[in-house]
Amino acid sequence: MISIGERINGMFKDVREAIKNKDPKAVRELAIKQTEAGASFLDVNVGTAAADPVEAMKWLIEVVQDTVKTPIAIDSQKFDVVKAGLSVAKNEILINSSKGDPEELDKFMSIAKEYNASLICLTMDKTGIPQDVERRMEFAMKIVEKAVEHEYELSKVYIDPILFPINVDQKQPALMFDIFNQIKMISDPPPHRNVGLSNFSQGTKEKRLLARVFLTMGISYGLDAAVMDVLDKDLMDAAITAEIIMNQHLYSDSYLTACRK
Amino acid sequence: MISIGERINGMFKDVREAIKNKDPKAVRELAIKQTEAGASFLDVNVGTAAADPVEAMKWLIEVVQDTVKTPIAIDSQKFDVVKAGLSVAKNEILINSSKGDPEELDKFMSIAKEYNASLICLTMDKTGIPQDVERRMEFAMKIVEKAVEHEYELSKVYIDPILFPINVDQKQPALMFDIFNQIKMISDPPPHRNVGLSNFSQGTKEKRLLARVFLTMGISYGLDAAVMDVLDKDLMDAAITAEIIMNQHLYSDSYLTACRK
Repeated sequence: MISIGERINGMFKDVREAIKNKDPKAVRELAIKQTEAGASFLDVNVGTAAADPVEAMKWLIEVVQDTVKTPIAIDSQKFDVVKAGLSVAKNEILINSSKGDPEELDKFMSIAKEYNASLICLTMDKTGIPQDVERRMEFAMKIVEKAVEHEYELSKVYIDPILFPINVDQKQPALMFDIFNQIKMISDPPPHRNVGLSNFSQGTKEKRLLARVFLTMGISYGLDAAVMDVLDKDLMDAAITAEIIMNQHLYSDSYLTACRK
Repeated sequence: MISIGERINGMFKDVREAIKNKDPKAVRELAIKQTEAGASFLDVNVGTAAADPVEAMKWLIEVVQDTVKTPIAIDSQKFDVVKAGLSVAKNEILINSSKGDPEELDKFMSIAKEYNASLICLTMDKTGIPQDVERRMEFAMKIVEKAVEHEYELSKVYIDPILFPINVDQKQPALMFDIFNQIKMISDPPPHRNVGLSNFSQGTKEKRLLARVFLTMGISYGLDAAVMDVLDKDLMDAAITAEIIMNQHLYSDSYLTACRK
């Protein structure tokens, strides 16, 4: 699966301090550790405390690019921050994320296409976040239509149906599985199916276990990307195992090692 | 889910020795430990080495019944062994298992009904084990028809579509998920969906991890019973977590403890 390492985020204290002090050490370490753990992308988010988010994003991306060759996910819904990130980017880029309003999609898809970047699109707009399958699928359809209109490759589109915390609404996971399955069939090739995994079990006592089990169940319905804690080895092992069970890699006794290479 | 503890089986050395020496100690311990671990049923299988399987089954069941009140799964496809087990049974009983031949189903369903026992029915007959969805579903339909014919409650029927080891055929798990889902919709109430879980990863290097991930994925498609290693705490925790995610129990922060009670 496409694992997007979540740790380079100004919401975490070490990264917030690094940005504040322009001290690249913690960021470099997180870039290396997440890359070694098998991250497909490194999410880069300046958080809410950065004095100048545009400059902070540029600096973070430059530090990461100086350290590893791993593709980067520019994590911001502010267009100027995303644009600044793209202007310094050398590696493969995923933009995380655009809302589903037509004008937002137009802006983000145009720039994503210009920079040959991928794009996470959320099934929500300025009026709010739908919680049912039907309205999320309407967003998914509109996102696919927009991609066709922009002649933007569907294989670069990541649809994120917005996963709610389990302790907020316990009916949501089964709906999400249905949605992953439907998005997989929406077009050929289909857009990717993405979630922000840590949000699912944030604040629960069995945080890691809940995230791990949701992820493996999701993979069996077609979930193929997640912003997640790639440093959680049990989580990465479970994801690889789920993919082996779904016959996405060839089984061998050493599949855990083989699938990390 | 309905967890059927697999450990009281003459294939394991400690149980084989216990049967041979008529020494109940190891069997009692396994009955207590599996009950404490949350087993819904204790599977009892005399193995292949017992000199007199009929007497061995009676003795094992009596030892278990003298120790715990946990329901018992009489594990044999030999009709005389099953009958002997039923003749001494005091607790709730599950018969494991009947093949899908009409004459076998007639025999096993009649005696199951007589003793108010549940019955695992395999999607196979004397001609062999089908490996596709279609022929397994034909067996499932025939099993349901037989139950209706015998006026045998469908809630007492467990259909086992026979899970192959992952290292034998990697395409099987996805087929099994489809089958669980279809069996769930075959009747109202539907029969249970059962597998022999340990068989899935027998002989692999990541035995426990593979079994655990398959089980959680299966639960999201309607798997609700398994002959399994209930002493594997990680496996039981994962199963409970999968059920929480599927909204089968009310979420609370202490759901792992709450759902075991």
